[in-house]
Amino acid sequence: MPYFDHNATSPLSPVAREAWLRAQDELWQNPSSPTRAAARVRNALEAAREKLAALIDARPEQIVFNSGATEGASAVMAWLARAAAPGAHIALNPAEHPCVLESAGRFFANRIRWLPAAVSASEWETENLKSQISGAAAVAVMAANNETGFIHPWREIAAACRDARVPYLCDATQWLGKLPGSGLAQSADWLIASAHKFGGPKGVGFVKIADQAESFDSHAGGAQEHGHRGGTENYPAIAAMVAALEDAEARRMHLETERLRWRAGFERAIVQTIPGTQIVGQNLPPEERLWNTVTLLMPREDNTRWVAQLDKRGFQVSTGSACATGKGGPSHVLAAMRVPPDAAPRAIRVSSSWETSREDWQTLATAFAEAAQALHAP
Amino acid sequence: MPYFDHNATSPLSPVAREAWLRAQDELWQNPSSPTRAAARVRNALEAAREKLAALIDARPEQIVFNSGATEGASAVMAWLARAAAPGAHIALNPAEHPCVLESAGRFFANRIRWLPAAVSASEWETENLKSQISGAAAVAVMAANNETGFIHPWREIAAACRDARVPYLCDATQWLGKLPGSGLAQSADWLIASAHKFGGPKGVGFVKIADQAESFDSHAGGAQEHGHRGGTENYPAIAAMVAALEDAEARRMHLETERLRWRAGFERAIVQTIPGTQIVGQNLPPEERLWNTVTLLMPREDNTRWVAQLDKRGFQVSTGSACATGKGGPSHVLAAMRVPPDAAPRAIRVSSSWETSREDWQTLATAFAEAAQALHAP
Repeated sequence: MPYFDHNATSPLSPVAREAWLRAQDELWQNPSSPTRAAARVRNALEAAREKLAALIDARPEQIVFNSGATEGASAVMAWLARAAAPGAHIALNPAEHPCVLESAGRFFANRIRWLPAAVSASEWETENLKSQISGAAAVAVMAANNETGFIHPWREIAAACRDARVPYLCDATQWLGKLPGSGLAQSADWLIASAHKFGGPKGVGFVKIADQAESFDSHAGGAQEHGHRGGTENYPAIAAMVAALEDAEARRMHLETERLRWRAGFERAIVQTIPGTQIVGQNLPPEERLWNTVTLLMPREDNTRWVAQLDKRGFQVSTGSACATGKGGPSHVLAAMRVPPDAAPRAIRVSSSWETSREDWQTLATAFAEAAQALHAP
Repeated sequence: MPYFDHNATSPLSPVAREAWLRAQDELWQNPSSPTRAAARVRNALEAAREKLAALIDARPEQIVFNSGATEGASAVMAWLARAAAPGAHIALNPAEHPCVLESAGRFFANRIRWLPAAVSASEWETENLKSQISGAAAVAVMAANNETGFIHPWREIAAACRDARVPYLCDATQWLGKLPGSGLAQSADWLIASAHKFGGPKGVGFVKIADQAESFDSHAGGAQEHGHRGGTENYPAIAAMVAALEDAEARRMHLETERLRWRAGFERAIVQTIPGTQIVGQNLPPEERLWNTVTLLMPREDNTRWVAQLDKRGFQVSTGSACATGKGGPSHVLAAMRVPPDAAPRAIRVSSSWETSREDWQTLATAFAEAAQALHAP
């Protein structure tokens, strides 16, 4: 499938579709109703919670199902701001997703302290960073970046936060389904994620809540989700989300090395056929960028022209984060990664899935070469 | 189908299922992506917004898609509290859904003024009520009650609010799909609703926002929903919701009189075969209760025993609001309707759908008679 915009969204996976339809047929009742059919839905919902928890090493009662990572970011930031010592700051990775940045802006206003971008594992042990996070209401650093694929060393960040006794919020939206979820919940106090990035339906996701966060909620209302989120539980979508993640975890994770090779082949081909093309993060070891993501800085022409040329040829790629579209201005992520402002409008994000074949990568490279020719032609 | 708990949730309607699957196959891309496929989703999303707006006489730009009425209530209350004059109160119908009551409690705390329950159309013109709502930050009265089916005279409430220059928030969750949506958006400044109550999927709904509410949002994040709600739009669920509501509006609304007759037949049968049974709101004209809802006060035995007996016979009914389950205590709605506290534990809610046949009502009455016998047997 010549679709290379998986970091924006993926099509529904077959297992998720099947789980959703089965739930709509057999387990559609309101879990709070007093009938036996409703009790079956209630049990299935708690079984889904247990399965999801097991995939990320959480306890089931730490999982709160919601509508996705944006709702999650907002609810977690609101809770952190309420729980914080007066005047406490939040320490933020400047390349976070807009949902984390905007929520932090709303609830912490001028109490944001910016961390350096793309901090390596060893740097999380330096005194400089320790002083940055000391006394913070929270530290927010995503597991993997949506625009560049850059992987943040969440285990080391978690250790530094633990030492500093500061809660760690980790946006795992781009990580889950692409790399193993095991250990995530034990490292990060708070996790947020969206199902549609890993083959689940849109409009569903979850928060893993911290210990001692009994008063956390997404919005007031009924006693659903153990009091953490009012509103009728969307069991069909939850079942589909868990099915998609279980499938990815069970069948895919061992393929990472191969996929890194395929991407490397693509990168070599592009740099050879379109001289002057740069790869954001090209100096990093390849496995420090998600195996599915490449952000290219083309040597000339606005990214929109490249996207249109590729689109004509049946290849869907992106100019960057879909969630940042409509906000205008250059990418804050690329700025944080020190991409010069004049180069940012030439950035193209290519993001694959487990279903993407080696041949797909090869034909995409060919399409890029054709696009380059078309853009040079008079 | 012997399912009589539609006010808790309905199964997915065939048109909604078809619309959802079609969207998952053909229009699953992220509407914010820069490709032609994404532009098609964007256009389809705006077309869905126009269709939904037309069904309730709103303008498309007043429609904000979200995860349902609970998210809606929370976001609207937060906005109203921010926009209110310092110290301004909110005037609340005491029989509102928990999502409205709890959100009001959170954002208005001790600035809640309780309206009398079940106010008739003419009473909304009295000086007493005018003084209750005068100077309020908002008035919240649902269109139809989820537990009793009681219909609030929203046109008259809207007129009274307009005269008092107070915003009117109307929870239309139980109204939509059961009675015509036309005129709703012109009457109420704010509307909230959930798709799964009218045959759409769970986890999707909408807010109709007031004029001059440009700063309204559900949560911070990307610029989606014209800036009113961050997060990837759930187009498949939105398409399914709109399909379900269009279907109900186009094919069903003329059937109300017939359905009122079928319910009346059921009510007569129950009162005859189980003497002492009372119907909540029995003194009202039948059309002032939603045609699909009956709340019965059984002459003896806890409602849970009746529900279990009926469940055994294949009939799903409810003890009341699913969203209030787990909160404990007697129903606040029945208390507001002056049902004595000792009678409330004997309340059973029966709620049908357009698919419920006359025969379904008749067999339910028979099942009640059998349940009564079983409960009397030694």
